[in-house]
Amino acid sequence: MNYAIVFRLLGYILLCEGGLMCLPALVSAVYSEWAVLRVFLLTIALCCAIGGALTRIRPRRRIFYMREGCVTAALTWVVISVMGAVPFVLSGAIPDPIGALFETVSGFTTTGASVLADVESLPMGILFWRSFTHWIGGMGILVFLLAVLPMTGGSHVNLMKAESPGPQVEKMVPSVRQTAKILYTIYLGMTLIQIVFMLAGGCPLMDSLMITFGSAGTGGFGIKNDSMASYSPYIQVVVTISMILFGVNFSAYFYLIRGKFRKVLIEEVRWYLAVVAVAIALISWNIREMFPSLLTAVQQAAFQVGSIITTTGYSSCDFDQWPTFAKSILVALMFIGACAGSTGGGMKISRLVILLKSIRREIAQTLHPSVVTPVRVDGKPLDQETIRTTHVFMGAYIILFAASVLLVSLDGESFTTNFTAVAATFNNIGPGLAGVGPMMNFGHYSGFAKLVMTFDMLAGRLEIFPLLLLFAPETWKKF
Amino acid sequence: MNYAIVFRLLGYILLCEGGLMCLPALVSAVYSEWAVLRVFLLTIALCCAIGGALTRIRPRRRIFYMREGCVTAALTWVVISVMGAVPFVLSGAIPDPIGALFETVSGFTTTGASVLADVESLPMGILFWRSFTHWIGGMGILVFLLAVLPMTGGSHVNLMKAESPGPQVEKMVPSVRQTAKILYTIYLGMTLIQIVFMLAGGCPLMDSLMITFGSAGTGGFGIKNDSMASYSPYIQVVVTISMILFGVNFSAYFYLIRGKFRKVLIEEVRWYLAVVAVAIALISWNIREMFPSLLTAVQQAAFQVGSIITTTGYSSCDFDQWPTFAKSILVALMFIGACAGSTGGGMKISRLVILLKSIRREIAQTLHPSVVTPVRVDGKPLDQETIRTTHVFMGAYIILFAASVLLVSLDGESFTTNFTAVAATFNNIGPGLAGVGPMMNFGHYSGFAKLVMTFDMLAGRLEIFPLLLLFAPETWKKF
Repeated sequence: MNYAIVFRLLGYILLCEGGLMCLPALVSAVYSEWAVLRVFLLTIALCCAIGGALTRIRPRRRIFYMREGCVTAALTWVVISVMGAVPFVLSGAIPDPIGALFETVSGFTTTGASVLADVESLPMGILFWRSFTHWIGGMGILVFLLAVLPMTGGSHVNLMKAESPGPQVEKMVPSVRQTAKILYTIYLGMTLIQIVFMLAGGCPLMDSLMITFGSAGTGGFGIKNDSMASYSPYIQVVVTISMILFGVNFSAYFYLIRGKFRKVLIEEVRWYLAVVAVAIALISWNIREMFPSLLTAVQQAAFQVGSIITTTGYSSCDFDQWPTFAKSILVALMFIGACAGSTGGGMKISRLVILLKSIRREIAQTLHPSVVTPVRVDGKPLDQETIRTTHVFMGAYIILFAASVLLVSLDGESFTTNFTAVAATFNNIGPGLAGVGPMMNFGHYSGFAKLVMTFDMLAGRLEIFPLLLLFAPETWKKF
Repeated sequence: MNYAIVFRLLGYILLCEGGLMCLPALVSAVYSEWAVLRVFLLTIALCCAIGGALTRIRPRRRIFYMREGCVTAALTWVVISVMGAVPFVLSGAIPDPIGALFETVSGFTTTGASVLADVESLPMGILFWRSFTHWIGGMGILVFLLAVLPMTGGSHVNLMKAESPGPQVEKMVPSVRQTAKILYTIYLGMTLIQIVFMLAGGCPLMDSLMITFGSAGTGGFGIKNDSMASYSPYIQVVVTISMILFGVNFSAYFYLIRGKFRKVLIEEVRWYLAVVAVAIALISWNIREMFPSLLTAVQQAAFQVGSIITTTGYSSCDFDQWPTFAKSILVALMFIGACAGSTGGGMKISRLVILLKSIRREIAQTLHPSVVTPVRVDGKPLDQETIRTTHVFMGAYIILFAASVLLVSLDGESFTTNFTAVAATFNNIGPGLAGVGPMMNFGHYSGFAKLVMTFDMLAGRLEIFPLLLLFAPETWKKF
């Protein structure tokens, strides 16, 4: 393990976080929340002091392998979460440190599960920071670092690989830095477009900003106690469309801009749109009698489907009251998740596609044992390693999931509550059903259960392996 | 597809079933249930007529590949279930044909999920047949056929592969027929030992026989409305031990008899016993205050753990009333299941072991990308194919599971009921939680949901792929 280079990178990350925290500080100043402003300035100073000290470390060797990439990614997310929780504790918004850590991890991992029952009473600076963590976490803070920092040497693609969601990392252009810049430009551009649409619908500026952060990062922290239920149908439709668009593989937008239209609707995107459409249709049919018109039913179904499959987690109504069939579809969508290379979480559509094709291949193999048929995606055969890691990912996913449900169930809540609480945190969604339904929160869980789910949120965001690596003694061997 | 040979084998299977049905017919005669006896004689005649006709088919070619093996296995289980349901319908015990099919498939697949609320009112012949299906299905009817029928030519190992549970089939001796004979001899021997122990505890003869059929086959049809709750602690302990023993890989007993003690406690068996011990300890601690003494708590925990992990499904108390942690452990055990090569269902311990080792290998691979480390079980490296099929099995398992929960939820029952109902049928267990808890039954589900779960029971018993093969158009191509 090349400790020096890892620490140095963590230093840069802290400086980044300090810089990004200036925005909520500014909001506090505008709203004359002087106590909150003091808290932010103190945290920024802390970030700069520790970050500055760490960046002074000069690594003797430039060695930077997958191991370093994974460890840096995992530690980055732990460090920014711990530091990001400081304002919540010091401002008194969430005095309990475990609760504050849960809330911050939930923010950065774009989960959106909250321990707060009453978010409307929060100071504006804190509320803004809470939603802003979604935006920062959405595209990934390491990707941000790669985009802004001119780093020399080392194979920084390992950093990107460790943080980017999905079974494969597609570099749209040969340079990692350029790829990171393109991703952030698209991200920023789409965010701005949504803000304009929100403002056009008469949504107040701060609401527009914070709701957009939550949908762009597929986070889902509500800024009202009833999430999105009290907003106008226009705003709900804008958010629905934007959530679904942020769940698309970002390379699609890159190729769209470049005019390479044939590369836009790749197999994963087609599957994604098909799943969304089918889910909306089935749920609309199932809930049609709960709403005055079919159109309203479709709009409500679309909002919830878009929110859950992209793992955003906003809600425009209490879907815990829906019939079991509709709820079961939503639970299934929780696991499927959005496209790889989007800001969404879950298992990812591409993994599901690889899995389905592996099953078909297995059947073909039984029928014709002597013929070797490759698994093809977009016409190209997948390499064995991608298939293997996809399968192992699914296995690790199930085992971690089951273990988490067991640990969380020590609290004694109902099976549905525990199962969907873990599903909602592990897949970075936010709300579940029953005790953690859209109109409930996670505050009633014990500190231990909150820590388990904090781990799950990080494991979900980093797709398990970088985090597991932290627990392998061999990772920490010096060389 | 070599249709002729498949039909011929199905003919033999029907003759077998007719022969085996003579036993419940005899019971009916002893208990002077003349109407029921007539029903059985009629069904036996039907089996002989159709079976006799089919066995007259002379296949021109002896070709018998994996494809034929899988299709024969899948069709065998469908055919014996349809025929086995006839006595239930004709005797009026379960007049609804779908319910009767559900009950019979539940019997043969050793699930033990019942649509009957009051089993104590059934005629003895019917009750006996219901429990006897467990014993027939436990070791597999094709394995039985292989043991009794001198078949020439063709690679009959494909039949055994298709029906035997687990990721690999171990032939204990080179000949398939000899292996099948050894398996059935051990099975019969252990069954007889349990009957003796039951009788020694003062259990009536018929009760001893039927309870033993249920535990030997890891089926779990209760013959009392409260399953095993009203039996003495001695009987419960005997059943506990025997359930756990029938969940062990049968090759362990073979090597035990042969004196090859080092081959008895193979890795899978060690893991299995460890999981059982840990589960009993955790649940005993969790439920200790619900029982007068710790010993009673341990005994009750052991019964339920043994019953669920081996996928038997007997219950000695209403574990749906237990705390969530204990219930969550039981749900986890539902999926883990027993050892490969036992009469139990579920995913199988060996698959879990392969999965855990694949995950460890993946971590090692990230740390040392250039070193290729094989996955080892019992010191021997596993071949890539076994690992791949294990992974694909897990994937297919999850997808079928999710699809089933969705379809079943159309009935509108609660999420916990639907989830555990599918878990209990897919893993061939029997009872679930809430609406399908140990003191409840599956009768309240619609015909459609029953058919879905009937499919799940067959898919669980045949480990998915043989059944999926029936739906691939290419399977049916003539050559």
